[in-house]
Amino acid sequence: MSQQLAVGIDIGGTNTKFGIVDRRGNILCDGRMLTNQHEEVDAFLDELHGHLSVLIAQVGGIENIRGIGVGAPNGNFYTGNIEYAPNLRWKGVVPLAKLLEAKFGVPAILTNDANAAALGEFMYGAARSMRDFIVITLGTGVGSGIVANGQLIYGHDGFAGELGHCIVIPGGRLHTGTGAHGSLEAYASATGVTNTAYEFLDARPDTKSTLRDYAKEDINSKVIYEAAMKGDPLAMEVYEFTGKILGEALANFVMFSSPEAIVLFGGLTKAGDLIMKPVREHMEKNLLPIFQNKVKLVFSELQESDAAILGASALAWEMKD
Amino acid sequence: MSQQLAVGIDIGGTNTKFGIVDRRGNILCDGRMLTNQHEEVDAFLDELHGHLSVLIAQVGGIENIRGIGVGAPNGNFYTGNIEYAPNLRWKGVVPLAKLLEAKFGVPAILTNDANAAALGEFMYGAARSMRDFIVITLGTGVGSGIVANGQLIYGHDGFAGELGHCIVIPGGRLHTGTGAHGSLEAYASATGVTNTAYEFLDARPDTKSTLRDYAKEDINSKVIYEAAMKGDPLAMEVYEFTGKILGEALANFVMFSSPEAIVLFGGLTKAGDLIMKPVREHMEKNLLPIFQNKVKLVFSELQESDAAILGASALAWEMKD
Repeated sequence: MSQQLAVGIDIGGTNTKFGIVDRRGNILCDGRMLTNQHEEVDAFLDELHGHLSVLIAQVGGIENIRGIGVGAPNGNFYTGNIEYAPNLRWKGVVPLAKLLEAKFGVPAILTNDANAAALGEFMYGAARSMRDFIVITLGTGVGSGIVANGQLIYGHDGFAGELGHCIVIPGGRLHTGTGAHGSLEAYASATGVTNTAYEFLDARPDTKSTLRDYAKEDINSKVIYEAAMKGDPLAMEVYEFTGKILGEALANFVMFSSPEAIVLFGGLTKAGDLIMKPVREHMEKNLLPIFQNKVKLVFSELQESDAAILGASALAWEMKD
Repeated sequence: MSQQLAVGIDIGGTNTKFGIVDRRGNILCDGRMLTNQHEEVDAFLDELHGHLSVLIAQVGGIENIRGIGVGAPNGNFYTGNIEYAPNLRWKGVVPLAKLLEAKFGVPAILTNDANAAALGEFMYGAARSMRDFIVITLGTGVGSGIVANGQLIYGHDGFAGELGHCIVIPGGRLHTGTGAHGSLEAYASATGVTNTAYEFLDARPDTKSTLRDYAKEDINSKVIYEAAMKGDPLAMEVYEFTGKILGEALANFVMFSSPEAIVLFGGLTKAGDLIMKPVREHMEKNLLPIFQNKVKLVFSELQESDAAILGASALAWEMKD
């Protein structure tokens, strides 16, 4: 019995990461390349094929590869297409799974990046053996993957789980990417955290903050994080505020699918208790009594760089023979 | 092959309805009794057994009955218990499925009333053959049943789908039953509609309305409905406002599970276009473009009195042999 390995590919707005993974979730070898070097998807695939061919040869050749799993923004599980991804250079509908199959001669399967992260947690991470959980990815954007009854929820069209675009404050802050007002992503993304800091700096001129030493354009989520870790009161309030909004949103999500756990994943989780404490407090506060003190709220246990590859590779194990 | 019939029981705050149903969804015979006549659940079951025994004899005896399905407030599918139902006289945890099995000698299975309605739509109603849909019940309260990947979502503890308790207006109107502020049920339930009318009557003293002819305590959702159907501007605004809030909430639900359809069910739907138009408008307005003009928003096709019995009976077909 060969075919005991899978290729996992994580296509992000900046980097594309790839690796070869065994069934136990060991990444045998991996690499990365820039996503947006190539205007045409064919040129991107040529470069990717070059990198991966070397790795595949290292593990004994393509006959050991069961398939290729891909996580990509706006990746559609049902069609295998990337559809209108705003952060990628390839516009419209890109039949990525089909193109990969033609290139490598093995089956390929695609889903969006947050769903891939959820699969990674399901098979190798904090949600092992759980049948009901939600993964929230907190990075440049806010994404989600939802597992219920032991299955990833794709919805009728493959686009389920866009929780970052739920409206949490009707009429609230503009989300420039979508034009929506008050969506979760407008607050809990890296950009959202930065915008909150801008608002607080303007609205509280009397609150001292080391953030005032920076030019406005140099303030970003990393700078705010470092200030908060040093005890800067305004930066800490930014996390308190972000955690409150995220916690309230999570309470609504619990009312939907009553998950055993919510796994938080991505850049914002580096802040540890600074973000976890207000998230937990405001989630619990907004839950019906029957849901209180039941939902495990945890950070991902996977290395961020590994999780994406692991999750994408996990798709390959789900393929039918 | 006998056992081709099922008993469906719908336990509501006021009435308990029951019937005997064949696999095609024909209700062969049915009846009703008051739920809260009996302080003890045993006395309730004695009366129910009396009524049902007559019906069961009519269809040829208990050997034709495959099982009993029950929809009940706070009914837990996993445990078969009614747990802390605020509107029932039997307090704490009532092991209803077990008690019914002992009484009738056939398997019994339980879920909450909104999940039963969703099963009814799934097998016999507007959601036939759909794998992904949501049913919203708009009555004394606001409930929901969610089907994804062709399965009812129960969550890890059996309590998934409490969408009426999602917070839609943070810090909004008090929901007296739960103490929450701004939950969907505070606006889109019969009580919510009445409270909206009270607010509008106070806040808009210059708007003429036939509702002003009533004593405050005589204004209820039925009176408001009748006024709106006669073109009363204030009553019509109540529906516009209710529909806006419900539509915004539905948009968030679509972002979660991307259903093929949302089925609206219960008293509020009698208002027809008065409620459907604003719901549709505000749902579409708040959806990401990838979800727009895709979700079928429909009223239940089932008779309200039948749907509850049908849905509950449908549980019995799901039981393993």
